[in-house]
Amino acid sequence: MALIVQKYGGSSVADSEKIKGVAHRIARAKNEGNKIVVVVSAMGDTTDELIKLAQQITEHPDERELDVLLSTGELISSTLLAMALGNLGYKAVSLTGAQAGIQTDYNYSRARILRVSPKRITGELMKNNIVIVAGFQGVNPNMDITTLGRGGSDTTAVALAASLNAEVCQIYTDVEGVYTADPRLVPEATKLKNISYEEMLEMASYGAKIMHPRAVELGELYNMPILVASSFNDSPGTLICKEASMEVRNRVRSIAHDINVAKITIIGVPDHPGISAAIFEPLAKANISVDTIVQNASVENITDLTFTVARNDLIKAMSIIEPVAKSIDGKRCATDSTLAKVSIIGTGMQNTPGYAAIMFRTLYEQDINIQLITTSDIRITCIISENKVKDAVQALHKAFELEIS
Amino acid sequence: MALIVQKYGGSSVADSEKIKGVAHRIARAKNEGNKIVVVVSAMGDTTDELIKLAQQITEHPDERELDVLLSTGELISSTLLAMALGNLGYKAVSLTGAQAGIQTDYNYSRARILRVSPKRITGELMKNNIVIVAGFQGVNPNMDITTLGRGGSDTTAVALAASLNAEVCQIYTDVEGVYTADPRLVPEATKLKNISYEEMLEMASYGAKIMHPRAVELGELYNMPILVASSFNDSPGTLICKEASMEVRNRVRSIAHDINVAKITIIGVPDHPGISAAIFEPLAKANISVDTIVQNASVENITDLTFTVARNDLIKAMSIIEPVAKSIDGKRCATDSTLAKVSIIGTGMQNTPGYAAIMFRTLYEQDINIQLITTSDIRITCIISENKVKDAVQALHKAFELEIS
Repeated sequence: MALIVQKYGGSSVADSEKIKGVAHRIARAKNEGNKIVVVVSAMGDTTDELIKLAQQITEHPDERELDVLLSTGELISSTLLAMALGNLGYKAVSLTGAQAGIQTDYNYSRARILRVSPKRITGELMKNNIVIVAGFQGVNPNMDITTLGRGGSDTTAVALAASLNAEVCQIYTDVEGVYTADPRLVPEATKLKNISYEEMLEMASYGAKIMHPRAVELGELYNMPILVASSFNDSPGTLICKEASMEVRNRVRSIAHDINVAKITIIGVPDHPGISAAIFEPLAKANISVDTIVQNASVENITDLTFTVARNDLIKAMSIIEPVAKSIDGKRCATDSTLAKVSIIGTGMQNTPGYAAIMFRTLYEQDINIQLITTSDIRITCIISENKVKDAVQALHKAFELEIS
Repeated sequence: MALIVQKYGGSSVADSEKIKGVAHRIARAKNEGNKIVVVVSAMGDTTDELIKLAQQITEHPDERELDVLLSTGELISSTLLAMALGNLGYKAVSLTGAQAGIQTDYNYSRARILRVSPKRITGELMKNNIVIVAGFQGVNPNMDITTLGRGGSDTTAVALAASLNAEVCQIYTDVEGVYTADPRLVPEATKLKNISYEEMLEMASYGAKIMHPRAVELGELYNMPILVASSFNDSPGTLICKEASMEVRNRVRSIAHDINVAKITIIGVPDHPGISAAIFEPLAKANISVDTIVQNASVENITDLTFTVARNDLIKAMSIIEPVAKSIDGKRCATDSTLAKVSIIGTGMQNTPGYAAIMFRTLYEQDINIQLITTSDIRITCIISENKVKDAVQALHKAFELEIS
């Protein structure tokens, strides 16, 4: 008898019919003789609607109160799912994040899980109950409700799976798994049977909106296998797990892309120590995530500094950067919000420099200009024009022979 | 510095504008130097909408799950109210029923409060916070969420007021107080400055939909003064409290009426011991509340048995009673769902038999037929035709000179 943790996202439980469908899927897993713990997100747009409600009251809702408000979305979906299972004749019980033992720090709206005390869950499993846990939420040492922020329900699921020693954590969502590239851009893209945590992390950070990197990191830390599969069909999905082969596999596994990219260039920056800190510290304080940073070679102690941010952070970032640029005697700032990232991802790429050459040549042959380049051990990313993304992804998918992966 | 408990009902917090209005009222009470604990119901029709959601999943939702689902309505309104106070510059914190220490028994959907442990509340008051408590909910010894059923938020408010030794429990609602009769029927009806717990209990049970009797009973038990007033204006309201005068006051205080009455008559019942139990036990088991019961004098050991139930219980009651009537050799059953109750209420009426005579004569002069009569120490109720209610209430209001009360 295996213990399985399943997670269903908001689109999988968007209405009562979909909730009933999810109940049937859970029942099937139960019938196979498993102990089942289910983590569920809020129904469809519930969270957005609750935020709207708060904003009708005040532009700056208190964070503690907002977390309690938002936590109700998952309470609603978890109770409805437990009712649907009861209606099918299965014993099911919903638990709040607090009841499920999800203990977090004090950071409202972006709490981190400190530990999981799954005593109540194991007790309910002993009674042969299917346990439905409200995702995205926990409780701080003061017994106040917190929410986990982006990727919260995925993180709840992986954390519970780890603390319960589950056989697998199954993330059911609106995609069928992890592909060699976005099938909307590349019809020949194929689904990967498995992928390593590292590769998945790079994909999550570089455009594939399947799972938040935070949940993948947690899976890697506890070596918990994570299955990503569709909640709407029985297609097998992709298993995120430890690299099966001891030997590093020299292959590009997938092409990721992201059009949520804006570039800021500060032109004519004096090149002396402390300048980078002056620029990037205020951005960090404003919670703006800076991605690629490139500094041109200095000519007569004057340089240009370029970096990228998410597009919806551009206006806020500029309002911070322009006074800073003035204060450090920068000449002027330029922005471009028509850019995109394309990345090739694969474990062990660093051992084979040939991959970068193939990537650059492929883009060149497509007449695509590379504006910035950034790399990690298992990823090479080029920043290009947004309107070239489809050409780039298709050409790279072909160049690295991913249609036969 | 007084401690005041205020309660706002669903219509008082029906939308964001009303919530902001309530926040201003609370702020005013805080500015007067009081410690404030506020109990709040769910916004407008939220509870009905949540029930509808559950019924889309199953006709018979699990009671434990339904209670968690319904409890979210008050979490939403309490957090929004705390945000609105924060926006006005006041320190406010919302608490769930569990956090507020509302400990109940295990009866889902109709839990009774066992005790209140207001440690968290007193701690927040010490920090100069306005405390907003989600009404209608508590937690059972298993740490599962329960709801209190009808009159739940009023009961939360009075229970908190009692356990915190509050100066007064203020119930803000959509009426301005307790009237000598329903002002929609009797334009001359006047608002009572105060009323005893007993009188209020009779009124609550006999038609005036202002407060659930259960909250009034709790107020009487702990001798907690309860002010009923409008949340939409500053009219003074009615104070429910211990009878001010030691001497019993021989007066009719108000006329109550209720059109939610259906009558069942079992004709030709053998008059021997055990028959009443055979009839009323199955009704009690089905949770049907039987009101007036009248048994005619027995003729040749055969009698007619008449009783009343709420109209929406009539079909269910008949499905139980018809087989029972057959099994005890009753001749047949008759029903009438076009009836109503009118009552005169006043402490100490029992000492003055003249009141009954005045009531019966008044109805007779209006050509109103009395079908059944039932009395308590401080109430006389007549069951009459529904279409005579207005005439009856107006005539009785005049006969007992309540327009000058």
